[in-house]
Amino acid sequence: MGSQTPFEQRLKAGIMINEHMYELGAAPNKIRETFAYGLERKAIVGPENVYDLSIGNPSVPSPAIIDETIARMAQESKGTMHAYTPSPGLEDVRQTIAENLNRRFNQSYSAADLYLTSGASSSIAITFKGLVQPGEEVITNVPYFTEYKTWTENVGATLVEVLTRTDDFQMDIPALERAINPKTAAIIINSPNNPVGTVYTDQNIKDLADLLAAKSREYGHTIYLVSDEPYRELAYDGLTPAWVPDLYPATIVCYSWSKSFSLPGERIAYILVPPSMPDHDRVYKAICGGGRSLGYICAGTLFQRVVQACIDAPVNIEPYDVNRKILMEGLDRIGYTYIKPQGAFYMWIQALEPDANAFYERAKKYELLLVPSDGFGVKGWVRAGYCCSKETIEGALVAFEKLYREYR
Amino acid sequence: MGSQTPFEQRLKAGIMINEHMYELGAAPNKIRETFAYGLERKAIVGPENVYDLSIGNPSVPSPAIIDETIARMAQESKGTMHAYTPSPGLEDVRQTIAENLNRRFNQSYSAADLYLTSGASSSIAITFKGLVQPGEEVITNVPYFTEYKTWTENVGATLVEVLTRTDDFQMDIPALERAINPKTAAIIINSPNNPVGTVYTDQNIKDLADLLAAKSREYGHTIYLVSDEPYRELAYDGLTPAWVPDLYPATIVCYSWSKSFSLPGERIAYILVPPSMPDHDRVYKAICGGGRSLGYICAGTLFQRVVQACIDAPVNIEPYDVNRKILMEGLDRIGYTYIKPQGAFYMWIQALEPDANAFYERAKKYELLLVPSDGFGVKGWVRAGYCCSKETIEGALVAFEKLYREYR
Repeated sequence: MGSQTPFEQRLKAGIMINEHMYELGAAPNKIRETFAYGLERKAIVGPENVYDLSIGNPSVPSPAIIDETIARMAQESKGTMHAYTPSPGLEDVRQTIAENLNRRFNQSYSAADLYLTSGASSSIAITFKGLVQPGEEVITNVPYFTEYKTWTENVGATLVEVLTRTDDFQMDIPALERAINPKTAAIIINSPNNPVGTVYTDQNIKDLADLLAAKSREYGHTIYLVSDEPYRELAYDGLTPAWVPDLYPATIVCYSWSKSFSLPGERIAYILVPPSMPDHDRVYKAICGGGRSLGYICAGTLFQRVVQACIDAPVNIEPYDVNRKILMEGLDRIGYTYIKPQGAFYMWIQALEPDANAFYERAKKYELLLVPSDGFGVKGWVRAGYCCSKETIEGALVAFEKLYREYR
Repeated sequence: MGSQTPFEQRLKAGIMINEHMYELGAAPNKIRETFAYGLERKAIVGPENVYDLSIGNPSVPSPAIIDETIARMAQESKGTMHAYTPSPGLEDVRQTIAENLNRRFNQSYSAADLYLTSGASSSIAITFKGLVQPGEEVITNVPYFTEYKTWTENVGATLVEVLTRTDDFQMDIPALERAINPKTAAIIINSPNNPVGTVYTDQNIKDLADLLAAKSREYGHTIYLVSDEPYRELAYDGLTPAWVPDLYPATIVCYSWSKSFSLPGERIAYILVPPSMPDHDRVYKAICGGGRSLGYICAGTLFQRVVQACIDAPVNIEPYDVNRKILMEGLDRIGYTYIKPQGAFYMWIQALEPDANAFYERAKKYELLLVPSDGFGVKGWVRAGYCCSKETIEGALVAFEKLYREYR
């Protein structure tokens, strides 16, 4: 809140706004700029000659049952299905979700543990609002999704950045230990990870849990673990991401159907406060208050019903896996250094010069659109999204090869 | 933010949350409690014998074209229509909305003036976040929708309550003048009004505009006028609520389709920053930043498309108007004092004893469910929603009569 101007300064200007909000709203957004640039280039050189790996919009269509269900519900609605729901979401929808989790992860959750939201973004913003207080700190592993900083600062707290291990991008437990202090309210983790594609090992999360438990005892208050997991089902080679509340009781799970069901624009997601959470009901009610405070009334009624009806639909990760393998084989052949993606649909590739932005600009010469790592808190890498067509990946590899030659 | 606990106090408790958020989340909600009580009573005495006038869920079905459009879009989608949109909403959707406003209100708005949101609640929360700074004040007319206070306090500002005139519930301009001071960032108005049903006259709003203009000049900064108008189309007797930006250039309009199209659960709404706004682009970007800060990514993609396709669908207020007239005639006959509703679907009725809560409890004996005025910031009245069936209104009048006899 440091950049906010006190009301007295209103007097100095004709119109006054929250300057920090202006900065957030006016900030250049590399991903969005690149997307717009890609559209321009496609118009000029043809869409098949532009290799846009900058975006994170899932390319796999939603399961067919999603649109079938929407159509059926609309036909049956007679204009009456669009009413308000309770703020945490319809109780029977929450119960269905709880039972799905119970089957998959051998739990005994119920509707009272779930709060439906308008996307993982709101889940995290609401969780921070409910549980983190001004002056406290939230820890993130780096590289990280930029908005963690925005939502932490929204509650007057500070985001503390801790680099993951440089070899495998797993969490660096000793570094996290050095970062934790009595002001630490929470740590947020994201596995499968955007932007790196890593899946934290069970042991890595257990080590974190041991650390958090020890520090919680030392400081006399429980440090929350916020598990941001929209990519849970997008894990490859048979890998199953750990069910984090099994390893640490004070875990908040923020899940979204944006990626698994390719519904990112429809904003349907949940917060899970597991029964293992100390003082469960107070934590849950603080989250309800957080939602109220941020202007949430309820998750969209139709999509609450849609995810309920489609909850068991299989998630199709095969096209992403095919792209992933083509990309790995191609980059191996050319000679790039990258982190082998275990989940999500991004690959983290070392730039061929220290300045990732300069590398990003050179790649554009070959119509290859990437995202420089600076926006994720580190220098010298790029993120390549492979949630696109196979043809785009194949064309991108030709461009990657030309780009590589330019540097050698 | 006064009730928030600094991080040091975490040490005193096993688990710490934002206590103010807990209070918000745990606060008893009279409307919701009454709704639940009504369901219980309906199960016991039969739904036709309970007269629930406590709720604000529109009883008129959505225009048929809404569900037809949803079904058609779902059939055409092939799982690909659910992608992210730009944060302010799809440009062509915003352009369609702008053109609709241009036709109806003789304006020249464009997509660049509109920011789509997940309901009027988010519109207001985002507007306050973008434009109001900690330590400042927002003025509301009283009685008012409770959440104005929540969203004002969310940005560390204070809500200042100013009573409307006691005879006609129009804005009390001299009282507003006394309340305005250099800390005043904005005034929020709601016409047609929840809970009273008044529509502010053009002259009343002009008088407010003159006052705000004079005070803005005096203090050297523009005071914003936030016009919360989800009930715009719900005005009776041929009344047309003023188009507020025509009367005051620094107006932000927060509109929602919740009531007009009976879509309250689907969370689709907009913020309008008209071209007349001083420093328009900075104000617009501060609102974009406010949305980002609160965790909004975009309004739901499907419902953006749906309101675009259905923008010219007529709003059916006839059933509400019929109920309104039956209720007025009945209460006149019995002898109640009430404010004649000019818009929305609520009637503001004087309780028959000074304690509105006691009156509310006595009404329950006759299965008549109302909302006491205390939650809206004043004592001695009840709100009766007539967004229900005609039969419920007719039954309610019998109960009103029995209740009246008890007091006489």
